[in-house]
Amino acid sequence: MSGSVIAIDLGGTNIRAAIVGRDGDILRRASMPTDSADGHLAVVDRMVRLIGDVGAEADIQVPVGIASPGPLDPRTGTILYTPNLPGWRDVPLVDLVSRATGRRIALQNDGNCGALGEADFGSARGVDNLVYLALGTGIGGGVISSGVLVDGARGLGAEVGHVVIAMDGPRCTCGSVGCLEAFASGWAIRRDAELVATTADGDRMTELAGGGELHAGVVAAAADSGDPAANAIMRRAGRALGAAIGAFTNIFNPSNVVVGGGVAGVGETLMQHARETMPQHSFVDMRRDLTVTYSSLGADTGLLGAAALAFREFSSETR
Amino acid sequence: MSGSVIAIDLGGTNIRAAIVGRDGDILRRASMPTDSADGHLAVVDRMVRLIGDVGAEADIQVPVGIASPGPLDPRTGTILYTPNLPGWRDVPLVDLVSRATGRRIALQNDGNCGALGEADFGSARGVDNLVYLALGTGIGGGVISSGVLVDGARGLGAEVGHVVIAMDGPRCTCGSVGCLEAFASGWAIRRDAELVATTADGDRMTELAGGGELHAGVVAAAADSGDPAANAIMRRAGRALGAAIGAFTNIFNPSNVVVGGGVAGVGETLMQHARETMPQHSFVDMRRDLTVTYSSLGADTGLLGAAALAFREFSSETR
Repeated sequence: MSGSVIAIDLGGTNIRAAIVGRDGDILRRASMPTDSADGHLAVVDRMVRLIGDVGAEADIQVPVGIASPGPLDPRTGTILYTPNLPGWRDVPLVDLVSRATGRRIALQNDGNCGALGEADFGSARGVDNLVYLALGTGIGGGVISSGVLVDGARGLGAEVGHVVIAMDGPRCTCGSVGCLEAFASGWAIRRDAELVATTADGDRMTELAGGGELHAGVVAAAADSGDPAANAIMRRAGRALGAAIGAFTNIFNPSNVVVGGGVAGVGETLMQHARETMPQHSFVDMRRDLTVTYSSLGADTGLLGAAALAFREFSSETR
Repeated sequence: MSGSVIAIDLGGTNIRAAIVGRDGDILRRASMPTDSADGHLAVVDRMVRLIGDVGAEADIQVPVGIASPGPLDPRTGTILYTPNLPGWRDVPLVDLVSRATGRRIALQNDGNCGALGEADFGSARGVDNLVYLALGTGIGGGVISSGVLVDGARGLGAEVGHVVIAMDGPRCTCGSVGCLEAFASGWAIRRDAELVATTADGDRMTELAGGGELHAGVVAAAADSGDPAANAIMRRAGRALGAAIGAFTNIFNPSNVVVGGGVAGVGETLMQHARETMPQHSFVDMRRDLTVTYSSLGADTGLLGAAALAFREFSSETR
């Protein structure tokens, strides 16, 4: 099983593991619930068991890449803290897993791994300059510039959901004001929809006042069926997304912007508004050669990103 | 004269040249007016003469770094066009200068050179992750991430003055809407001051209505002397600058942000507002280790940046 790596996608709900080949082919996979309530050592135990499962026949030289929610310090291999794994603080994940398995371990946050996955196995395969945006409940992502992950002095960078789009805009869950996430994330769309639902004068005004669950998919579907309130919400979110993509274009001059995550999957409306707005916030010279696409990796983005990370970090052992 | 390079700072008004040593010591310098009205070949001739002047005793192996206004393509060595050198379009500057001098030539835009100069010789010496902002009539700059210049697929990136700060903000000279430059540049401050001057009800309301020249230095001085209109203008500019620095912090996790250019030199008021606003737009983990300083290279930023570029591009010959 040479030329392969072990990939771990650590999420708030599940830990997923796989053996992944050089071409991004998933040779074997396994998963377990994360159950972070048991404390971080129990989670590490499960992770180690999964590595043993999928890697039973893999030489000890086969390394492991871990995609984890951040913020984390990839240089020291430490999870600083993370809203998705309550109670974790300064957890030396790389040390713990490497001691238990004897394997070399690389760690990056899931957004940065997503960018690596898209560049090595996804819809931006072979691209050296790309921005990856993961639109979910929150907005994460990662950036590759001249082939190298942009993660900064402590490896905390590329918080692409938390760039200001409107300096006097709505407050974000991160504590800042006017971030992209405060406009175009799942929670922001839900916030706007709930505001409409509670202030609309009866459900004749808008489908959103019908009392149902107001996630981004519902709002997008209502917008697509002509609901003006829903359309205004999707337009606001899409405009913010377009403005941010414009800013990233002017900063990174990427050849590709890849948009993934559940909110990107709710239909074309959001991206249509983004595409219309983006030119108002970017140079023609840079947007001319830019390709904006959806992620092609879907639910395996984290897993394949972790694999890309391991291949890149330990390329001499895995070639 | 081994261990040195020839640096050229091509500006709209003057061409400046120098021999620069490994420590950023300027061993000899010369300059000429640019006179771009004579066409690009005449400007190239002057540049070649200056290289001959400062490099008279320099071995043919001593390379040349050129800092030029952009947009330009550093890979092909071509100036695409530039507002500061009217009439230039697709000028193959590196080819022209290299044929005339026989020397190796590297080309980058002046903002990116400024970042290299600050990292190699300036107030962020030895730093691998930094953002450089040049606040002049317009706003330029450059970014270094993990030791490498962020310039993107075609080398056009790091347009740090043209990131959206307010998606429904004022129009920028670049054609976009709500760019940092449309708030915090010399021209934006002048625009605001002229608006105040023409709408103020007599000069008792504000010093700005006195009929004098309304450049950023005048507005800053009026703000410092307690003029409320001038202070409102500087506050708006400083808040935009702070929001942008916050966004760059979250994107690049830099250890240093270096602010240079004439508008940065008008006093502490602008930066004070920026420092107050920046925390509202950045993560505490990333801003905690961040140092925000003024450029220490002053008028030599372009020249030393061009030198840094040549040392980096041709390090084997110059070591």
